[in-house]
Amino acid sequence: MSKALPRPVERLVEAFSRLPGIGPKTASRLTYYLLRAPVEESRELAGALERLRAETVFCSRCYMVTERNRDPCAICTDESRVTGNICVVEEPLDVLAIERTGLYRGRYHVLQGALSPVEGVGPGELRMQELVNRLAEEKIEEVILATNPTFEGEATAMYIKELLAGEGIRLTRLARGLPSGGDLEYADSRTLAQALVGRREL
Amino acid sequence: MSKALPRPVERLVEAFSRLPGIGPKTASRLTYYLLRAPVEESRELAGALERLRAETVFCSRCYMVTERNRDPCAICTDESRVTGNICVVEEPLDVLAIERTGLYRGRYHVLQGALSPVEGVGPGELRMQELVNRLAEEKIEEVILATNPTFEGEATAMYIKELLAGEGIRLTRLARGLPSGGDLEYADSRTLAQALVGRREL
Repeated sequence: MSKALPRPVERLVEAFSRLPGIGPKTASRLTYYLLRAPVEESRELAGALERLRAETVFCSRCYMVTERNRDPCAICTDESRVTGNICVVEEPLDVLAIERTGLYRGRYHVLQGALSPVEGVGPGELRMQELVNRLAEEKIEEVILATNPTFEGEATAMYIKELLAGEGIRLTRLARGLPSGGDLEYADSRTLAQALVGRREL
Repeated sequence: MSKALPRPVERLVEAFSRLPGIGPKTASRLTYYLLRAPVEESRELAGALERLRAETVFCSRCYMVTERNRDPCAICTDESRVTGNICVVEEPLDVLAIERTGLYRGRYHVLQGALSPVEGVGPGELRMQELVNRLAEEKIEEVILATNPTFEGEATAMYIKELLAGEGIRLTRLARGLPSGGDLEYADSRTLAQALVGRREL
């Protein structure tokens, strides 16, 4: 069999394959697409990749991603935001999701993951100690645990609950129940059970 | 709402989203993955992207992708390969697929697409004339039409058939039928019809 695949092609297929959720077939498809697309398209992607890490850092206060020359981040330095509470999330994208609701006016703390013994993620891998340090410094009264409604997210929320026990801080967790626009008939029984247990007076 | 997304993050999300089959959600996921992955990973991907177009060209004979300093490509210059026939395919990946069978020892011609009036791809956008030129130059006796078994691939094969009519060249098309390992029960009726029509003596 001929060595029909030039090394630069092979190298890009391998680099794409290393990304999560991109298998070898998708990696090949993307590579051959870029071979025929205007050369500016691969240049723009390469440039954006170079700049991502060169021009951003994690905020030294809340660990949200921010421009390198804007640390603490825009949310941490926004004087108009409410003080006294922190919303704890797993990832930067979770901050964006909560911001889109327009209902939360406090600050955040991005753990940068969730506890997962399987993947070797313990409390030391997350920004747990940094959260504890902020509680006293920022006179926090309420911590909203907005980790994901998954096994790992729940375990992380429970861990933080124990970590902060006796600190006299109000701990809350996002409500569980039926998703808006969902169909009761198709709700999984776990979600439906939580909706029943958490039912409210009308 | 805060401008919580730094420009370099936004830019990479946009660049990923431009790739085929990558929506805004996947683009965000990839971007945030790269924010936390070792910085070498985004550097390697950026480098591979820069090199893809800088270091490769399409072979000036068969239009397969090849190293810039190896034109004509490895297959076209491989003296051990059979002459007298050309296997016509749509894309470079099709060459690799046929090479993997180990059953074809001739040369290729990569059209770089298939006829598609909907997408504005006419014969002029494909390497049709270059194919015609090769037939005389390389004393071709058989042209194997290995375009895809799709509407566009069939139309392309039919177009080439008319284009080469009267040239005294043997034209063949890859067999159609049930895929290996497939289940007759689940075969679509078009495939099953073709398997019936093309049935062979045992």
